[in-house]
Amino acid sequence: MKYSKLIIPTTKEIPAEAEIASHKLMIRAGYIRKLASGTYIYLAMGVRSLQKIVRIVREEMNNSGGQEILMPLLQPVELWEQTGRKDDYGDTLATHLDRHGRVNVLAPTAEEVVTSLVSSEISSHKQLPVNLYQISTKIRDEFRPRFGALRSREFIMKDAYSFDINREGLDRSYRAMHEAYCRIFDRCGLPYVTVDAASGEIGGSGSQEFMVPCDAGEDIILSSDRNNYSANIEKAATGHREHDFEAKPAGDLEKVYTPEMKTIEEVSGFMKVKPANMLKTLVFKQEDAWVIAVIRGDHELSEEKLNIAAGGNCVGDIEAQVEEAGFPIGFVGPHIATGRKDVSVIVDPDAARGDFWAAGANEKDHHVKYFNWKRELLDPLDEAAGDKVMVADIRKAMDGDPSPINDGGMLRESRGIEVGHIFKLGTKYSKALKATVLDENGNQVPCEMGCYGIGINRILASAIEAGHDKNGIILPIAIAPFEIEIISLNNDQENVRTAAEKIYNGLLEAKAEVLLDDRDVRPGVKFKDADLIGIPLKLVIGKKGLENGNIEIQTRKNGKTDHISVEKAVEHAMAVLNKLKNKNEN
Amino acid sequence: MKYSKLIIPTTKEIPAEAEIASHKLMIRAGYIRKLASGTYIYLAMGVRSLQKIVRIVREEMNNSGGQEILMPLLQPVELWEQTGRKDDYGDTLATHLDRHGRVNVLAPTAEEVVTSLVSSEISSHKQLPVNLYQISTKIRDEFRPRFGALRSREFIMKDAYSFDINREGLDRSYRAMHEAYCRIFDRCGLPYVTVDAASGEIGGSGSQEFMVPCDAGEDIILSSDRNNYSANIEKAATGHREHDFEAKPAGDLEKVYTPEMKTIEEVSGFMKVKPANMLKTLVFKQEDAWVIAVIRGDHELSEEKLNIAAGGNCVGDIEAQVEEAGFPIGFVGPHIATGRKDVSVIVDPDAARGDFWAAGANEKDHHVKYFNWKRELLDPLDEAAGDKVMVADIRKAMDGDPSPINDGGMLRESRGIEVGHIFKLGTKYSKALKATVLDENGNQVPCEMGCYGIGINRILASAIEAGHDKNGIILPIAIAPFEIEIISLNNDQENVRTAAEKIYNGLLEAKAEVLLDDRDVRPGVKFKDADLIGIPLKLVIGKKGLENGNIEIQTRKNGKTDHISVEKAVEHAMAVLNKLKNKNEN
Repeated sequence: MKYSKLIIPTTKEIPAEAEIASHKLMIRAGYIRKLASGTYIYLAMGVRSLQKIVRIVREEMNNSGGQEILMPLLQPVELWEQTGRKDDYGDTLATHLDRHGRVNVLAPTAEEVVTSLVSSEISSHKQLPVNLYQISTKIRDEFRPRFGALRSREFIMKDAYSFDINREGLDRSYRAMHEAYCRIFDRCGLPYVTVDAASGEIGGSGSQEFMVPCDAGEDIILSSDRNNYSANIEKAATGHREHDFEAKPAGDLEKVYTPEMKTIEEVSGFMKVKPANMLKTLVFKQEDAWVIAVIRGDHELSEEKLNIAAGGNCVGDIEAQVEEAGFPIGFVGPHIATGRKDVSVIVDPDAARGDFWAAGANEKDHHVKYFNWKRELLDPLDEAAGDKVMVADIRKAMDGDPSPINDGGMLRESRGIEVGHIFKLGTKYSKALKATVLDENGNQVPCEMGCYGIGINRILASAIEAGHDKNGIILPIAIAPFEIEIISLNNDQENVRTAAEKIYNGLLEAKAEVLLDDRDVRPGVKFKDADLIGIPLKLVIGKKGLENGNIEIQTRKNGKTDHISVEKAVEHAMAVLNKLKNKNEN
Repeated sequence: MKYSKLIIPTTKEIPAEAEIASHKLMIRAGYIRKLASGTYIYLAMGVRSLQKIVRIVREEMNNSGGQEILMPLLQPVELWEQTGRKDDYGDTLATHLDRHGRVNVLAPTAEEVVTSLVSSEISSHKQLPVNLYQISTKIRDEFRPRFGALRSREFIMKDAYSFDINREGLDRSYRAMHEAYCRIFDRCGLPYVTVDAASGEIGGSGSQEFMVPCDAGEDIILSSDRNNYSANIEKAATGHREHDFEAKPAGDLEKVYTPEMKTIEEVSGFMKVKPANMLKTLVFKQEDAWVIAVIRGDHELSEEKLNIAAGGNCVGDIEAQVEEAGFPIGFVGPHIATGRKDVSVIVDPDAARGDFWAAGANEKDHHVKYFNWKRELLDPLDEAAGDKVMVADIRKAMDGDPSPINDGGMLRESRGIEVGHIFKLGTKYSKALKATVLDENGNQVPCEMGCYGIGINRILASAIEAGHDKNGIILPIAIAPFEIEIISLNNDQENVRTAAEKIYNGLLEAKAEVLLDDRDVRPGVKFKDADLIGIPLKLVIGKKGLENGNIEIQTRKNGKTDHISVEKAVEHAMAVLNKLKNKNEN
């Protein structure tokens, strides 16, 4: 293609709202233009990259036994009500109210639709396994769209769904997708790690994320310094941590007047107690009973872990109900469980120790000092009926925690961008939507499902996060909009123009993806734009070089420049290109 | 691919709502499944066809200088308000109200967005011409979705937009698209005609539709029997038709009491006057004045033609205003213009004759007989000021009308499916959205725009309308899901299975798109399904044939069967395939 015919609106201006490199550079290099909050027009350069990514994803999905289908963007809301996900998604679920008063979900994902399809069309285990996938536009009504292509309201997602007759089948399908994802990201030239992940509102028994490590990432990853464990902070476990409920009191329990002070920060400052010596007590409803989660004041609760420890169905953020049930919010201490049969306590090991503790006094506007587990809670509880206090890992893991492998490794924190996510769903959707098949014994059994997502636009953005310098984008050749750019330095001179056109046509014939900068602008502008848009290989054709019969060849990544003869330019460039391609694909 | 691995849910059942062949067959052959009213899941067979169509469209768009971009599905409603199209589209425009209370249009088309892009990114005539296109999902909130893939709420459209510095440039861009469209439909193997078309709510100065002729089509085409004129009924002109205002009265004007009878049918039945002898009088507002359109009772008004004759801005369907202005709806006659300076009359030639006429009496519940143009209207009008009566072609053309070429040809009616539509938009959008550029003289001028649409799903459906028989689908090879199907008749026999696999792998190596029916079902089922899904070429491998060293090769279209040797099966099949491909592409 010729540069002069394409709209590649490069610019020096950085949009004020762009916080991260990929967002800034995709705008500056004319890959995208903002239409409205969280929506972008992809121009020629952006579309070419996306299409190359899509091609790789499609090939690897087909190679892994995936079967491409296309499901509607408009989905009946009734399906989402049947699985309960309408509520789980909440306001992020975008909808369209049609002229007949029907609510249509604008698909953020398609578990419900694909399960209802399988429910109608597959009836026997002989038709399994199947893996149905699509590559299509998805919508999320983000509260705060940001980071350009990373968190937009509209994006292209590859979503795949596997259906198996049993757990072993699901494990096989899941592994096949894991391997396909590795091949996809390898071929895209992306650096990535796989981490254990929380399942969130999708549900299911296990999941892993594919993360591109980079400081701009929204996700926090915890990895063992022994390189044998890596997980999203939402999911990361910690290794064994000692606890000690029996420790002797450090002093008599003392009540302190802390008017209107409900947060750890307020109380800590007022009482002059470090957050690490305070107990953070959170109240959750679990059916007709209450669960008190206790962690150290400087730690953060993991609701995912709490739910696992408590056996599920813990509901938080229900202040009114909590107050009504007699919990003075902001002033609750663990000893509120004393004498209340409807309350159980789950304590994180770091909070279950014999230190000095400050805690809520279970009385409005009051806290206590010298809280002691045995004296305040265990002893009184022992007198009542039961097993109401348990110790479990319920806080988010942190940098410095012991690795859950328990091999002496330590967790270290880093950031990443999620580009892929694979889930074992189990039977959550197949049960809700009656996707059952006859098994070998003639019994109706629900399909074991997996689901597997890849964000196409995110691959592009994260490749730019991982590949750029102060001058612009440096994309892996497999997903760059063009493989090679020819800069015709003095396009007003006929011999330069002719040489450039000849090499351009030669490269096209050799099936290279080539961009010819034939614009009537200064050489400096061409060089700057070339660096900005980040085509991996560059040929520079100028008057002076031609006088000596040679042109320059330069790689974007390391700036290495060679001089090659005009005659052998195409041959030489193709050799370098193929070398770059081979490196990228390994 | 192997049949056993794909979901191709063929069925004998015809869904009750399916009225036309393509809808019935796409369901029966397992190309699509309905999700909800007007939305369909495309299964493997459907997706493969769509992708082949997309590839052809993309190649020809790129070959014609098109530049692919991707615009959001979510469009700010404010852009639609700026061009006034929000009202023009009315309830068909689907919207999404986001969590911040903003209204997002779900794109049915993208004139506004692309024009706003060009407005920001293109500033000089030197950057023109450009042709920006995308291939993406579009939404229309159809009142009554029907005909399966032909009129669904969600579909894939290729929409292209050209920007030129002047009319001549637009003409060139328009011609280039016309030619590209011909190549696209030729390559898809579609029979088609181009017809003059009305511009509808898109606006602009000229447009043509590409129609696939077929009885199930929603559009009515009028074509001269001399093959030199063809137009959509919304647009079709008629040849010269005589009129005669001076004819003598056939009798005295006679008032008839026609209580509550407002329609032609009611009055005609009651008065025993044929509709062809009645005047149908319709009232339109034009700014502060009124336009009375008069056609014969058995004819149909073309609002498009009326608007052209009247000079634009005629607004109908405003009963309350019409009544208030003193027009007794259902009882208006042309002579109401007498003495009213705010009323002008436009009469179709067929209604401007000296026959006996029945007309409204301009008095509630009354009509008149023996209406005479000269006596009732022209003579009294002559006394007042002016030129208030004009004769113009304002009715829809009909079968039997003279061709507008005025060469003695006669218009004949047929039906078609619109698969493509090209428009000269002019400056409607570029003015409204300020897409201006500096011309050679340094003046800011609005771009001359064209827009060009192709319905991807419609190409598939109309190809099926044009190509099927009682047994199923017959698709052109260029857009069939597979090129060749191998039927392994006795898949339980090892030698049959081995021979089938060998030929299957041979064809895959030769780059054929091949489907192997390896299912454990009866031969009859395989034959029926093969006919139904309509793969152009079929190889039948069975026990008996193999004993004689041969297999059968059969074309779907004419059922022609040959026997070929097992050894040369791949070679022979590829030769037949290539012949089919060459025919299709011419």
